Amino acid sequence: MSDHTSAPLGVLMGAEMAEQPDVLGGMAARFDDVSAQLKGLVSGGVAGVAFLARGSSDNAALLGRYAVELASGLPTCLVAPSVVTSYQRGTDGFAGWLIVALSQSGRTPEIVRLAGDFHRSGATVVGITNDSDSDLAREARLTIELNAGRERAVPATKTVTSQMLAVLAIAAGLTSRGQRALTGADVSVLTGAVSELLDDVEPVQRVAAQLAAHNRVAVVGRGTIYPAALETALKLQETSGMMAHGFSTADFRHGPIAVCGPDVPAVLLAGSGPADEDTREVRAQLTQRGAPSILVGTASGRTTPDVAWPLLGTAAECVLATVRGQQLALHVCRALGIDPDQPAGLNKVTLTH
Amino acid sequence: MSDHTSAPLGVLMGAEMAEQPDVLGGMAARFDDVSAQLKGLVSGGVAGVAFLARGSSDNAALLGRYAVELASGLPTCLVAPSVVTSYQRGTDGFAGWLIVALSQSGRTPEIVRLAGDFHRSGATVVGITNDSDSDLAREARLTIELNAGRERAVPATKTVTSQMLAVLAIAAGLTSRGQRALTGADVSVLTGAVSELLDDVEPVQRVAAQLAAHNRVAVVGRGTIYPAALETALKLQETSGMMAHGFSTADFRHGPIAVCGPDVPAVLLAGSGPADEDTREVRAQLTQRGAPSILVGTASGRTTPDVAWPLLGTAAECVLATVRGQQLALHVCRALGIDPDQPAGLNKVTLTH
Repeated sequence: MSDHTSAPLGVLMGAEMAEQPDVLGGMAARFDDVSAQLKGLVSGGVAGVAFLARGSSDNAALLGRYAVELASGLPTCLVAPSVVTSYQRGTDGFAGWLIVALSQSGRTPEIVRLAGDFHRSGATVVGITNDSDSDLAREARLTIELNAGRERAVPATKTVTSQMLAVLAIAAGLTSRGQRALTGADVSVLTGAVSELLDDVEPVQRVAAQLAAHNRVAVVGRGTIYPAALETALKLQETSGMMAHGFSTADFRHGPIAVCGPDVPAVLLAGSGPADEDTREVRAQLTQRGAPSILVGTASGRTTPDVAWPLLGTAAECVLATVRGQQLALHVCRALGIDPDQPAGLNKVTLTH
Repeated sequence: MSDHTSAPLGVLMGAEMAEQPDVLGGMAARFDDVSAQLKGLVSGGVAGVAFLARGSSDNAALLGRYAVELASGLPTCLVAPSVVTSYQRGTDGFAGWLIVALSQSGRTPEIVRLAGDFHRSGATVVGITNDSDSDLAREARLTIELNAGRERAVPATKTVTSQMLAVLAIAAGLTSRGQRALTGADVSVLTGAVSELLDDVEPVQRVAAQLAAHNRVAVVGRGTIYPAALETALKLQETSGMMAHGFSTADFRHGPIAVCGPDVPAVLLAGSGPADEDTREVRAQLTQRGAPSILVGTASGRTTPDVAWPLLGTAAECVLATVRGQQLALHVCRALGIDPDQPAGLNKVTLTH
């Protein structure tokens, strides 16, 4: 039996991580429906796609942005909520756009308010939320329910991975003619794959013990894996208080790699996508600097990962990378004797003005 | 005489920082012309504005994105170069868009290649570069020259602040009818203001000595100051190897603040904008956690900054915040006996595939 349900620290976080195969399975079963609904919603055409989010949801939004850009070729952006809320700038420029608003609780006030503003400006608002009775659901033309069950742990896990799957369904619905869209069948493998990862705790514990000896870590990934690097860094920050920094591989190797050395390891997240070989190549640069590196990802011809995830060959690998990152955060906390269910700096609902 | 020209460490970096009043003065003198040229270029209307950049230029692009969004209400986004370069996705969705491509050298291969792709897809490309004879300049309909002189120090300073002023000129040219556009007269004050900052070294040295005792720091800012927080963190990373992490205030206070404590200080950058009071308010939360905080910014009714910059009341305060960040990085290096002119991980031209 793996320790993620029996250990005294992070009981809630571990339990909610363990719900992910079911939650993702539910979303995979609705994947083709959601993608068809989305397709219907934008059948008149759409000028671009903007994502509206904060915190962990922002990392799911970033995956959405990559996936939509890749599938549709449409202009995609992440909206800065503060432009509208703090600077009182209007939303009129987004008439004809699809706005994807993400809020796990459906109650993040600035996200709800902005969703309403965008709707009134002539944009089509899609809400992604875990609460179909929330304010966000009321502002949206289409609500994608996460059906993740109540999230009681403070660090968001199951809602983040299900948000990731939801944005992939949106991207599937926006796929240009002639390109192959991701399908429910493609992502149904996540249920089994995530179960496998959650049962495969030993390599995570070994790596977590190594990381726990340091107070700084760089988490590096590129393309559709980059959102998982940011989410892994965020989870480490929030739960363990470790100064973890997520970097895009392309940026990291040309400067910020200077932060790594014998006392500062790097976690490299590398899947099977076309940008991921770059991330594997960083390992040699890190070795030259005397920096420990931990490779998490799919096996490739030349490298054996320290912690593996199965090769899917799609952007859904970001979900697997994110689960690996959750496990890392949980087990770093356990190695340090910190309870991630009661982190020092985190509130459940973000109440930014 | 201040130490930034006479000290043995970071001679080049200090010398190029000292050129900023002149370089910014030159850009301020051309500000109204650039803004008028831009206005002419898009007189037929524009669907949105996308920025294309990497590294330090990416932080100037982020300021551009905020400034353009605030001035014009147009959809604005930062393009992920890897979507096109690694995933082979086309750029057709950006027909009718204004593309602002930033490359200090004008030779960053992926930026140059993408600028050409966007042009052929029917977008209007504006290049911002320090080399008017570069490949980027040849791909652009309009080139905004930085005229910053050759940059020999590896950490970019004068080119970053002049890029920031260039994107503000673009935003000025895109300002909606009825809104007041930023003018050359508004930004001409930067020459004197930056000179003042560069002469005011003592408070920076005091704070740098404090930071140098730590190996981790959070740099926090919001809205139009957020790009300066990211740039300050990047300069600290590249030059000193310190694990500095830039955060948006709104995100930081709801989770990542857990990284701060007695051993991990935060640098708060707060100007006179409508979002900046949020950043000042974080100080109380940090104090509760026992985390040292350093306030850098304009004086406000309730707070006296540890390191000040003069109140301008415009987005050009981001330039002042960035200069303060450069000074911090330089003086942290000097306190640690590190030469920022020869940092351990940095290449001058980014050659990402």
